[in-house]
Amino acid sequence: MSDVIYMDNNATTRVADEVREAMAPYLAKAYGNPSSVHTFGGRIAHDVDRARQQVADLLGCDPTEVVFTSCGTESDNTAIRSALAVYPARRHVVTSRVEHPAVRNLALRLARGEGVLPRYRHTELPVNSDGTLDLPDVGNALDDDTAVCSIMWANNETGVVFPVERIGAMCRETGVLFHTDAVQAVGKIPMTLADLPIDMLSVSGHKLHAPKGIGALYVRRGCRFSPWLIGGHQEAERRGGTEAVAQIVALGAAAELAGRRIDEERTRVVALRDRLERELLARCPDARVNGTTASRLPNTTNISFEYIEGESILLMLDEYGICASSGSACTTGSLEPSHVLRAMGVPYTAAHGSVRFSLSVENTDADVDKVIEVLPPIIKRLRELSPFGREE
Amino acid sequence: MSDVIYMDNNATTRVADEVREAMAPYLAKAYGNPSSVHTFGGRIAHDVDRARQQVADLLGCDPTEVVFTSCGTESDNTAIRSALAVYPARRHVVTSRVEHPAVRNLALRLARGEGVLPRYRHTELPVNSDGTLDLPDVGNALDDDTAVCSIMWANNETGVVFPVERIGAMCRETGVLFHTDAVQAVGKIPMTLADLPIDMLSVSGHKLHAPKGIGALYVRRGCRFSPWLIGGHQEAERRGGTEAVAQIVALGAAAELAGRRIDEERTRVVALRDRLERELLARCPDARVNGTTASRLPNTTNISFEYIEGESILLMLDEYGICASSGSACTTGSLEPSHVLRAMGVPYTAAHGSVRFSLSVENTDADVDKVIEVLPPIIKRLRELSPFGREE
Repeated sequence: MSDVIYMDNNATTRVADEVREAMAPYLAKAYGNPSSVHTFGGRIAHDVDRARQQVADLLGCDPTEVVFTSCGTESDNTAIRSALAVYPARRHVVTSRVEHPAVRNLALRLARGEGVLPRYRHTELPVNSDGTLDLPDVGNALDDDTAVCSIMWANNETGVVFPVERIGAMCRETGVLFHTDAVQAVGKIPMTLADLPIDMLSVSGHKLHAPKGIGALYVRRGCRFSPWLIGGHQEAERRGGTEAVAQIVALGAAAELAGRRIDEERTRVVALRDRLERELLARCPDARVNGTTASRLPNTTNISFEYIEGESILLMLDEYGICASSGSACTTGSLEPSHVLRAMGVPYTAAHGSVRFSLSVENTDADVDKVIEVLPPIIKRLRELSPFGREE
Repeated sequence: MSDVIYMDNNATTRVADEVREAMAPYLAKAYGNPSSVHTFGGRIAHDVDRARQQVADLLGCDPTEVVFTSCGTESDNTAIRSALAVYPARRHVVTSRVEHPAVRNLALRLARGEGVLPRYRHTELPVNSDGTLDLPDVGNALDDDTAVCSIMWANNETGVVFPVERIGAMCRETGVLFHTDAVQAVGKIPMTLADLPIDMLSVSGHKLHAPKGIGALYVRRGCRFSPWLIGGHQEAERRGGTEAVAQIVALGAAAELAGRRIDEERTRVVALRDRLERELLARCPDARVNGTTASRLPNTTNISFEYIEGESILLMLDEYGICASSGSACTTGSLEPSHVLRAMGVPYTAAHGSVRFSLSVENTDADVDKVIEVLPPIIKRLRELSPFGREE
């Protein structure tokens, strides 16, 4: 596995060595329950609090505003369900067409009427061909029946960054709770939540070099909140269940590391991404970058190679040990083209042939060289085999 | 920490060496996302499936019936919420007075009417002074408005075991879904779910020597189910969120280990527990075992030392590095005596002075010797200091 070229960091990341070392004691001798009376368990509560501070430092907020969860999906679900619970008379939810399934599929279920819940009105905001929102659309969608507006900070498939500060301000003006799925933004974009009109924000550990199975939800102080996972008194009554200590410590260490690396992400990583993108476009005809004219994450490029299947490209890259993806891992297995690219109006023939490369600080110039060398002949060969033919 | 005598295994357990070794690769080189197309990620799906088989083997069920969750609390919440969702017209929930907060607090919220949900009728079955249920009470509580009956397999505070097979049969007769929180029973009581009338069952990893932050929910094939954590297609559409691979592999390894150790649990551990209990009762006047006449878990004893505070006993034991607890870690911080002991009608002066010792296969004869030596003088000293005095 050592010669894998890993460019699928928006799907998941390698656990950083520092993170693995930080969590190790909690998988060994320090196994107590932080809620216990005895010293052996009780002192572990301090280690959980240190991790909370580390996450708060990355987010620019107070540690009391950080609730640990099991993943980004749980954070997203918790935020939206909480808003519905604290505004039981409101029956409207606003999201965008390009949200992660953890927001989108939940909103779609609410709109269908789910179990004992009433049906919700759901406004799913469209995006432009570059993946951006029209801000007046946001304002028009909000009304006093809106329980929550949930718009991601950055898109997982294209890297397009949304103007969460302006969206949050519009929500605040109309008295609507604003949640943002920032799973892809945290650690890549500096943020100071204390200064932003954001009520709730989702974090996922495994997108920033912590293990899978840990996340956090920022809940602004003063934001009305109703817990979703009901059990013991943990997380200041905001999330039941024994604290996943090793995982929490890992997220804290990953947050600290991300803070130290964020400048590198915005300089060296963006340069790698830009070179990869530029060279691939130069060497492959009929290729286009999705979302290129928008503000984007430093690490992500989503390229459509027209008239061929993205899956075929991935399988051939795989033979060289190059890991990339077509859209989100969370929707793998579906034969439909990405809902994100469809929402952007990317033509069918291009949406099907899209490949996402998502880099991290662990990528090197040599990685980019290899992809630039290997991919253009793959594209050429697949085009020759393509049942779509090629219009020339 | 090496000379801690740990008798708080119902709160949490040490991660077994075999478990830590099994999960290690997934915190290092094998970091791919199991939903990815590339081999690097995709082959990890097989490792998740192997863990699912290991858990199924311990439970005596089919691996397709195992859904991984983040903890026992999530499993409990998911089971109950699912039942409400699949029977939206039913408005009644049956639990017992001695359930874990993950069931009890959820049921109490449902009974108050929570957020947008309707109010539920909630029957909370009483228990006898030995902590057992009267079976006719169960039958009388069930009606065709009952969405779910949730009764634990074994109580975390007293170790009292409930007749889940008979309760399940009564539920099946009346067409009510039966869920059991088996967090304390799994690995201590052999079970073959394929032969039992149980629809859903909760498992917690950290109660059986896996890390904190991983659990499972058994969902019987054919049982109507509605997912609670909405996101991607993971867990066969039953639980969204990227699979917590290292944690899942750990639970699998812990399940396999528990299967191998279950006979030792029922022989050596029960002998340790019995000796501890017998000697403490002989050496401490005004002590009583709660739930002693009932069928109990092999590892648990809950002893009330009248006229003194359990917390004081724990603090003094702590000075000797002995870890025990007063009731559940999930309710620590509350000044109320345990809801379990109150439900059993244990007098206030005894309920306040209760200490739970919960052993594991890692305990030794020397551990028991030490507690037997140390605790009686502590009780004597605390009684002399007690503001309650002692009626003689």
